[in-house]
Amino acid sequence: MTSKKTSTKMPISPFAPKTFANLKALAGIELQAMASGSRYVGRDDLVLVRFSKTTQVAGVFTSSKIPSAAVDLSRAHLAGGKARALVVNAGNANAFTGKAGAKAALDTAKGAAKLLHCKPEDVFIASTGVIGEDLDPAPLLAALNTQAAGAKASPSDWLAAARAIMTTDTFPKLASRTVKFGKHQVTLNAIAKGSGMIAPDMATLLAFVFTDANLPARLLQKLLSEANGKSLNCVTVDGDTSTSDTCLMFASGDKKLAGAPLRSLEDKRLAPLRAGLNEVMQDLAVQVASDGEGVSKLMTIDVAGAATDAAARQIGLAIGNSPLVKTAVAGEDANWGRIVMAIGKSGEAAERDRLSIDIGGVQVARKGRAVAGYDERPVAKHMRGRQVHISVNVGVQTKDKKKAKGTARIWASDLTHGYIDINADYRS
Amino acid sequence: MTSKKTSTKMPISPFAPKTFANLKALAGIELQAMASGSRYVGRDDLVLVRFSKTTQVAGVFTSSKIPSAAVDLSRAHLAGGKARALVVNAGNANAFTGKAGAKAALDTAKGAAKLLHCKPEDVFIASTGVIGEDLDPAPLLAALNTQAAGAKASPSDWLAAARAIMTTDTFPKLASRTVKFGKHQVTLNAIAKGSGMIAPDMATLLAFVFTDANLPARLLQKLLSEANGKSLNCVTVDGDTSTSDTCLMFASGDKKLAGAPLRSLEDKRLAPLRAGLNEVMQDLAVQVASDGEGVSKLMTIDVAGAATDAAARQIGLAIGNSPLVKTAVAGEDANWGRIVMAIGKSGEAAERDRLSIDIGGVQVARKGRAVAGYDERPVAKHMRGRQVHISVNVGVQTKDKKKAKGTARIWASDLTHGYIDINADYRS
Repeated sequence: MTSKKTSTKMPISPFAPKTFANLKALAGIELQAMASGSRYVGRDDLVLVRFSKTTQVAGVFTSSKIPSAAVDLSRAHLAGGKARALVVNAGNANAFTGKAGAKAALDTAKGAAKLLHCKPEDVFIASTGVIGEDLDPAPLLAALNTQAAGAKASPSDWLAAARAIMTTDTFPKLASRTVKFGKHQVTLNAIAKGSGMIAPDMATLLAFVFTDANLPARLLQKLLSEANGKSLNCVTVDGDTSTSDTCLMFASGDKKLAGAPLRSLEDKRLAPLRAGLNEVMQDLAVQVASDGEGVSKLMTIDVAGAATDAAARQIGLAIGNSPLVKTAVAGEDANWGRIVMAIGKSGEAAERDRLSIDIGGVQVARKGRAVAGYDERPVAKHMRGRQVHISVNVGVQTKDKKKAKGTARIWASDLTHGYIDINADYRS
Repeated sequence: MTSKKTSTKMPISPFAPKTFANLKALAGIELQAMASGSRYVGRDDLVLVRFSKTTQVAGVFTSSKIPSAAVDLSRAHLAGGKARALVVNAGNANAFTGKAGAKAALDTAKGAAKLLHCKPEDVFIASTGVIGEDLDPAPLLAALNTQAAGAKASPSDWLAAARAIMTTDTFPKLASRTVKFGKHQVTLNAIAKGSGMIAPDMATLLAFVFTDANLPARLLQKLLSEANGKSLNCVTVDGDTSTSDTCLMFASGDKKLAGAPLRSLEDKRLAPLRAGLNEVMQDLAVQVASDGEGVSKLMTIDVAGAATDAAARQIGLAIGNSPLVKTAVAGEDANWGRIVMAIGKSGEAAERDRLSIDIGGVQVARKGRAVAGYDERPVAKHMRGRQVHISVNVGVQTKDKKKAKGTARIWASDLTHGYIDINADYRS
């Protein structure tokens, strides 16, 4: 389990972009990608991000009952609402490592704090990679002290940072939007990794969003939680929840709004940023699903007519996680019977006799039964494409006989021989 | 979707028995397997079971919110507690078929009732096979009227019945125990189908238990629910819940207990039958997991130290359903990191720093971290076998600092290229 890894020869996702544009610099945020030599050979595996003193932070973490030491530390540090540094290492998740793991995370935070003359509580850590193996902080600290100390951090090394946090992702994931913020233009830059895995690594999802806007931590948290609920929390590759999932958002505070302090998500001045953040996060979500292990097709699943948005999400995830739906999509089979099965097993309310299903925009089931004689040709053609769109209305009625309005959109990869190759045939 | 199927050439499960013993006849119960010619060619696909007038019935059904018409009918008929006939057809699940489906189920029940001179409410129906296709009751009624009417039903055609209800099961599933019941010996005979599937068929689980004991319906229901909770409800192949899952138990009433009427599960006179029923149902459960689609290895997962038995079951199912655990087992990789992940995602309480995991009886993790220097050779050897035993203690403490005692045992198949072959590559 301690052997070093050279790059693996897994097939690249068919959704991998051909070229990558770098993102623009943000005031108050400097990035540096480094090679610690801990596990991977010949590539960067460590990222240090330095923040200005005005930087506020928000975060959402895995719901796993067995979180990693890095998650424990960052969750605790979030209480202060301030951030001066983010350290991300790839190759070792520092999960299921007991007290030694907690100490390794803390030692890393202390090392970064010493370098940057800040408090350890203002340092955030994220770790991804092998689980159950002790993380030796020494190579990380050595890299920080030799490669980061003295050297000039780059304010715009986004692509290098996105590459350095990859484990078996087949492409780096970046997204950006520039939006109006009062009289300013502010930028949202984001990087993520996820859905690649080498046994016995964990399929972990890490995402980091950065902005030069001035936003108080309390509001930043609300913004991030809202956007996360409709983006990263709506992605599924195999339904397995990592010990290490972490999404952090940092606002450097450079661009300030005039007028009264921001207090509410509903403040109209926040609307463009709120919309931009949702777009950035959904962009990352789609990229993660598009790099799902062994992916051949990307499913977009729209659910309507559910009792609540939360119920709609559960139904969408039940469809996107179903091995039978996923294999049907891989096999280009418009098997809506399996979609019915998945809706039924979600545990959420659905009205069988009002249920409708569209595939690729074609009605295949209405009022709880197959549409007699629907034209299968456009559906078959749609199934042969890279992107499969499934839309269901589960027809729930409220107590006062109105149509329930819960909706959700879920992104999921299919289930192919490639998934088995990666996770069963490839041995650690 | 209406094409007729000849037998498919799927690989036989490595767990398939080489020979099958028939089960013995039970007083008050007569079986008949027939060929309706509805969907399958050259094989029986319809079973009629006739019961004596004293027969009591109990049942448990799918938790799907979108149950089949057969499930709706049988669930409704259960209210009476009496049964005179069971009709099972394979090839068409009569699910997601709207009002036409409900009428087809009722027409079949009426046809059987007419033949047997009983009330339709005393007829039970189970259907398995393709979903979303109208079930034409005519061939079933024709078979009943020509093949069953007049012909002598067999009291001991258990093997033929078990074969007739198969869809893509690769072997018929039967189990039997004879137990003490007061001064009598009574027998529990059971047949089941499950876990095989041809797209777009549903992976459905049907199980039927028969006994010559005299048991009131109310108590029969308690017995069945208890045994089901520790057997068929603890099996997982792909985590997908069918629209059609049905388990019915029939007691013909031939063998009566002396003394006071049976009122409670705790009645000591019931102990041998209760234990025997658990054994029969667990026997079927293991057979179903052993015939899981594409199965190469059978996992037995023991969970202890959980808050409750229900929590232990959820944790065990999270492990048994995890694509990452299932592919690791298929790959003969003792990847306990994925087991940790699955426990964490179950949503049930687990104490990371008291967690322990054994594989094949060897301690691989203790107190929330890897056992330093454990001997990997016996574990590797165990992983190469057909049966993989995973045992976890999740170390939950009660409020008064005692060790929580929730336990469960789960049976699961692994996830292999064979599963993808069956569900993605094979087209309907």
